[in-house]
Amino acid sequence: MSSFVDELIKKNIPWLSSESQSSPIAISSRIRFARNVTGYNFPPKLNDENRNAIYEIVTHAVESCPIFKNAHHCQINELEEFAREVLLERHLISAEHMVSSEAGRGIVVSEDENFSIMVNEDDHVRLQGLRSGLQLREIHADLLQIDEAMDKKLHYAYRDDIGYLSSSPMNVGTGMRVSVMLHLPGLVYSKQIDQVINALSKMGIIVRGIFGEGSTALGNLFQISNNSTLGESEAQIVDRLTKVVNQVIIHEENARQTLLTVNETFTYDLIGRAYGVLKHAYLLDTREALSKLSALRLGVDLGIFAFLTTAKVNELFVATQPGHLQMYAQKALSPEDCEIFRANLVRNKLSGMGLELD
Amino acid sequence: MSSFVDELIKKNIPWLSSESQSSPIAISSRIRFARNVTGYNFPPKLNDENRNAIYEIVTHAVESCPIFKNAHHCQINELEEFAREVLLERHLISAEHMVSSEAGRGIVVSEDENFSIMVNEDDHVRLQGLRSGLQLREIHADLLQIDEAMDKKLHYAYRDDIGYLSSSPMNVGTGMRVSVMLHLPGLVYSKQIDQVINALSKMGIIVRGIFGEGSTALGNLFQISNNSTLGESEAQIVDRLTKVVNQVIIHEENARQTLLTVNETFTYDLIGRAYGVLKHAYLLDTREALSKLSALRLGVDLGIFAFLTTAKVNELFVATQPGHLQMYAQKALSPEDCEIFRANLVRNKLSGMGLELD
Repeated sequence: MSSFVDELIKKNIPWLSSESQSSPIAISSRIRFARNVTGYNFPPKLNDENRNAIYEIVTHAVESCPIFKNAHHCQINELEEFAREVLLERHLISAEHMVSSEAGRGIVVSEDENFSIMVNEDDHVRLQGLRSGLQLREIHADLLQIDEAMDKKLHYAYRDDIGYLSSSPMNVGTGMRVSVMLHLPGLVYSKQIDQVINALSKMGIIVRGIFGEGSTALGNLFQISNNSTLGESEAQIVDRLTKVVNQVIIHEENARQTLLTVNETFTYDLIGRAYGVLKHAYLLDTREALSKLSALRLGVDLGIFAFLTTAKVNELFVATQPGHLQMYAQKALSPEDCEIFRANLVRNKLSGMGLELD
Repeated sequence: MSSFVDELIKKNIPWLSSESQSSPIAISSRIRFARNVTGYNFPPKLNDENRNAIYEIVTHAVESCPIFKNAHHCQINELEEFAREVLLERHLISAEHMVSSEAGRGIVVSEDENFSIMVNEDDHVRLQGLRSGLQLREIHADLLQIDEAMDKKLHYAYRDDIGYLSSSPMNVGTGMRVSVMLHLPGLVYSKQIDQVINALSKMGIIVRGIFGEGSTALGNLFQISNNSTLGESEAQIVDRLTKVVNQVIIHEENARQTLLTVNETFTYDLIGRAYGVLKHAYLLDTREALSKLSALRLGVDLGIFAFLTTAKVNELFVATQPGHLQMYAQKALSPEDCEIFRANLVRNKLSGMGLELD
């Protein structure tokens, strides 16, 4: 069963593979709008027929947006399990959306993969914009355009006194969630990360690990996002988060400098071992891959690897995820086969590059 | 304070660096004779004056043996601490001999390092022959010649009814200890090693780890030796141990074949990771170095590394020991500095060799 996801995995992810204009510490920025169509219940209370109707209305409305020209769309239950996992791993759908087999749950992805819509997740429309680096203001501007065009077709549920209506009270108001993915190995290895997370949470900012939520943040990847959607304007939220992220980036840069000056050998050892294992292992589980890729990326940021780019390492973060591996393999893989396939992929990507540590 | 040990560490160890004629599983063979000079107490009961006298007599007698032409000799207390450690690490003196500062404790080393004598260790003379591979019979033949020449000068304490006298009842009789150093990663990784050790101990054969006695055998290196020196002729002991070692080698070869067929990926992963870490780490402790070098050596034996020789890996087993490192560095090194120096040494030895795993 072929789908647009087959094409997706052959391409680099633009928000990962384009070199960031800003600090390499900010991997990507993301904003999503939660919107609902007037005259319909929220998705949790819709039957199959109405969900299908919403899917039709939304995918039709999308055609009026230039950004969604040549967009792919399909219903989630048309997709194989691996393909759904790929969408999750590329941050295009949520875990809840992935596992549901309800009719009318859909996904729309722009040709460049920077914009997408989950249809009939918790809200009728969850519109998302994603870019590399710290580019919240740019994404916000793009989303406003799309949102306006869609609203003309869909007539979003909105009340002047409280803003956009949403199935979840958390999303009532602006209906906006703003987040930035940060790579913070410096703060983790220097054991300052908990302190930073605590300080941020007191400011109403949520910090989560990208992988392995609730436990250790695998790959030293953290998502920083706004907590409330009420009481601040969209522009204020975007501005505030941009400022906070810039502060965290400064802390991370300082931590990296300290690592290089106070713990230079430790840092080189960490990065060198990561490179050595990634380049020569024949078995590699997700957890170790993320941890070693994080160290490798730190090495690239510090200029230790002459021929390796941030984009290449970023791609590996996603390409080594189970869904992607199984899509590449075109079959279901046992956990051990996944480890073998992952190790082969990484070895191949890193070999023949003439890389040497200084 | 310079000594012949400075020269020693610049040279490869012949019993490690010469390619073995037999299986690479047998790293080296060693025989030592315990002998005492008539008319003197055993060393534990000698005073400084008599120990010095024995040292003079023995080093003089040595001159009558062609094998000891241009031999080095000195008293242990003339040597720096690192130099003593180097002698221990090159299997030329015992730990007891190394730490004692008593006058008259000495070491004689043949120019090719294959033959040596500890003077005034537990016996007046502990003559040792050491060769690569499984060559017990050859060593025995050489030692008999030396022993005969020395006996003419020193008149060894001997009784027809019990044989050579020795300070330790364990050594009375032939006064001979025969041992072979084996590299047994196959038996260790396939978890058959305990079974083999038990079977051998029932035959009166002792099996010890070369490094980390009493605990795990670091580097998967084991020393197999005869337990008793009474009741068998020297030739019988040598023959019996040779046969036993050949049996163990067959078991190890089978275990390696099983690893390659049943657990091929595990084996490649083990070897690949070892190579990757050794080539790229910046901190390396003794324990990890031995473990990774053992895996690397297995890789060489299995033909995975085209440009790396058994001899080169064997050399690293010794060169990465603390005494050698400090002699190379020409100064005392803290444990962390030792780790840095060791990692640098191994990285340098493995770099620029164009090695790639298949």
